[in-house]
Amino acid sequence: MSFLLQIGRGNMQNLLYAQSGGVTSVINASAAGVIETARQFSNRIGKIYAGLNGIIGVLQEELIDTSYESNEHIRNLTYTPAGAFGSCRYKLKSIEQNRREYERIVEVFKAHNIGYFLYNGGGDSQDTANKLAQLSHSLGYPLTCIGIPKTIDNDLPITDCSPGFGSVAKYVAVSIMEAGLDVESMAKSSTKVFILEVMGRHAGWIAAASGLAKQHEQRLPPHIILFPEIVFDEEKFLAKIQECVNNYGYCTIVASEGIKDSHGRFLSESNSKDAFGHAQLGGVAQTLAHIIKDKLKLKYHYAIADYLQRSARHIASQVDIEQAYAVGQEAVHLALAGKNSTMPIIVRTSDNPYKWKIDSVELHKVANVEHKMPRHYISEDGFGITNECYQYLQPLIQGEAYPEYTNGLPQYVRLKNILVPKKLADFQL
Amino acid sequence: MSFLLQIGRGNMQNLLYAQSGGVTSVINASAAGVIETARQFSNRIGKIYAGLNGIIGVLQEELIDTSYESNEHIRNLTYTPAGAFGSCRYKLKSIEQNRREYERIVEVFKAHNIGYFLYNGGGDSQDTANKLAQLSHSLGYPLTCIGIPKTIDNDLPITDCSPGFGSVAKYVAVSIMEAGLDVESMAKSSTKVFILEVMGRHAGWIAAASGLAKQHEQRLPPHIILFPEIVFDEEKFLAKIQECVNNYGYCTIVASEGIKDSHGRFLSESNSKDAFGHAQLGGVAQTLAHIIKDKLKLKYHYAIADYLQRSARHIASQVDIEQAYAVGQEAVHLALAGKNSTMPIIVRTSDNPYKWKIDSVELHKVANVEHKMPRHYISEDGFGITNECYQYLQPLIQGEAYPEYTNGLPQYVRLKNILVPKKLADFQL
Repeated sequence: MSFLLQIGRGNMQNLLYAQSGGVTSVINASAAGVIETARQFSNRIGKIYAGLNGIIGVLQEELIDTSYESNEHIRNLTYTPAGAFGSCRYKLKSIEQNRREYERIVEVFKAHNIGYFLYNGGGDSQDTANKLAQLSHSLGYPLTCIGIPKTIDNDLPITDCSPGFGSVAKYVAVSIMEAGLDVESMAKSSTKVFILEVMGRHAGWIAAASGLAKQHEQRLPPHIILFPEIVFDEEKFLAKIQECVNNYGYCTIVASEGIKDSHGRFLSESNSKDAFGHAQLGGVAQTLAHIIKDKLKLKYHYAIADYLQRSARHIASQVDIEQAYAVGQEAVHLALAGKNSTMPIIVRTSDNPYKWKIDSVELHKVANVEHKMPRHYISEDGFGITNECYQYLQPLIQGEAYPEYTNGLPQYVRLKNILVPKKLADFQL
Repeated sequence: MSFLLQIGRGNMQNLLYAQSGGVTSVINASAAGVIETARQFSNRIGKIYAGLNGIIGVLQEELIDTSYESNEHIRNLTYTPAGAFGSCRYKLKSIEQNRREYERIVEVFKAHNIGYFLYNGGGDSQDTANKLAQLSHSLGYPLTCIGIPKTIDNDLPITDCSPGFGSVAKYVAVSIMEAGLDVESMAKSSTKVFILEVMGRHAGWIAAASGLAKQHEQRLPPHIILFPEIVFDEEKFLAKIQECVNNYGYCTIVASEGIKDSHGRFLSESNSKDAFGHAQLGGVAQTLAHIIKDKLKLKYHYAIADYLQRSARHIASQVDIEQAYAVGQEAVHLALAGKNSTMPIIVRTSDNPYKWKIDSVELHKVANVEHKMPRHYISEDGFGITNECYQYLQPLIQGEAYPEYTNGLPQYVRLKNILVPKKLADFQL
């Protein structure tokens, strides 16, 4: 039987998984969901490959053979942040503009007998997966393309939330809670205003999540949240800071990197030039700090969470990890069911107690659609979240899922990432 | 018997605890050590007071009566970052320069029958405690002053380490480990150089702790550590970055805020002026980023941990918390033993397995002495830590001591902080 299976395996189509775009602290949990599930279907799936550095690895025929990785290492992916196979920022142009790349991908798929392509990324990546599905069929190559949702920005449409978001939400809420206690305890004689700059170029979900720390108490941090969806109003902003300092002795601010002024200009770009004439590269936090210093003469500090926020697996949300795993798992089921050009989504079936299930959607419905914060999730003054938003966000940060520690440090896994021998000529990107 | 004890308590001297300087994620564990221990000696200690906002509260006769706080809340202090009674940045001048303040403090002590003063802070605070001990005795007021060590900077002398440091060390090591994985997985098509700016104006201990993440593997982050103890050499720095990018595809840097150039100037101040002629307030990370962009044309990102690093109770070191508690506990024992002008210290009795005990030292030996990194703890090229340093640091981040979570967030306690009625006239700072 196992002999027959082994012979059979040669004819079975292989599965290729690839990570795309900015990584998260739980994208590897999706990878584990894919690989562990696919390994259960060894009677239907041949090899399980992964693209080295995402679609770049596919274009360059750098495919990782995951069969060299032990079950234990694959399991450990659920505890390991970032992209274990490498990810990339590489957006394929439209088929009209760059047919050559799409054809190359199909050529690599053919050469390595890839029947299932699972692409783990945000809106752009879902668009790519959708186009690949179309093109491969028009080229007569029967490929099943499945998208797997991932983005810390939580800006994918249709799905109730995006895997990766819940953990950055938890990180941001915990961080402002902790830093807020710090500032509060020193405010009498030291820093009065603290700014935490978080990611979110176009959508304010990450900044919004800091509102969870407030727990409906006006006096608690964060006192001001700045969303990309709300035009920055310097006068109102300064008045609110002064009000907080008067009432509570200090003020804490969480600012999205993407906030814009009334001219639609990013605040992070309005920071003029330095003495050498270079455009200032400081971000939003620094711009805000300058304004506060100039106009209010208050002592400030700022933190820029940058990559720390999206790699902080040590404080990931259990719900987020479960969902990240589940969409990876479901992607394999969709692939085997031949549901081409679809993506698993998370459907909320109950708020309290929080319940969710996995469903799926056609890729063309999610590709390139950006889901921003609705106005009714933002408080009237534009500086906080509403109760409705709180209810939405609150379940997503539930549960702690600590990695294992050895010698005081998390035991994150590094895979072998052994490449499959190339069969094609080199390809220039 | 209990009636007699209660009568007796009126004559017993009270204990005053105060927090000083920048707070840490475990200073409240020292507070818990003090209060829980003092409560065990209700036959010898009257009331247990705390200064509101440290010494400022003492000067202004704003004393918190901790007897209003439940045993459970005091216990929860071991899980709560920052200063639960408020801390301050307020350095008393010398007795010659400002005798008025010292006399006021003694006046407040007399009015509230304070026999024990426990001052929880860094080098400056130990100096203050020492001076107060001297002055009160010269004024004929029999005060027992005990210092309790605290500083994230780890720059107190004699003690093997300073409570507060182990937790920031763990935070920094975990953070660079996680962000390093993130950068590594994206480097092929995105950020090549990542900078994490950490605290440490004069001593590089915090930056050094990031070296624990490396675990002796050259290829692992952090690739470059910049210490205040080593003069910043731009050419060597850029060459090392290029070497890392060539060898590993990316480079991660942990920079102390206090690094200086060959003219002894802080790099954070060398950032020139902006278009409005304002001195640039960007810190070290930004200055380094500009250099990297100008000279190497590499894509970079930077994070500034700022207060997040010293308030991150969620990732505190178990060893650090135990030591913070133990020095608080011992301070009470020293006070009751009449060991005036002393401070508990941590003594390492074994490296492997790590063992430590509490001893004590006279305050004048620690006051105003800054313990920097010894040169033999820094690698020859100045960009890393030696094995000896690794052996020293490694035990300090051992063990996880997670706070309890409710609804996805840590349950940090906020005390009532009810003030004792004033007895004296107001005092102007």
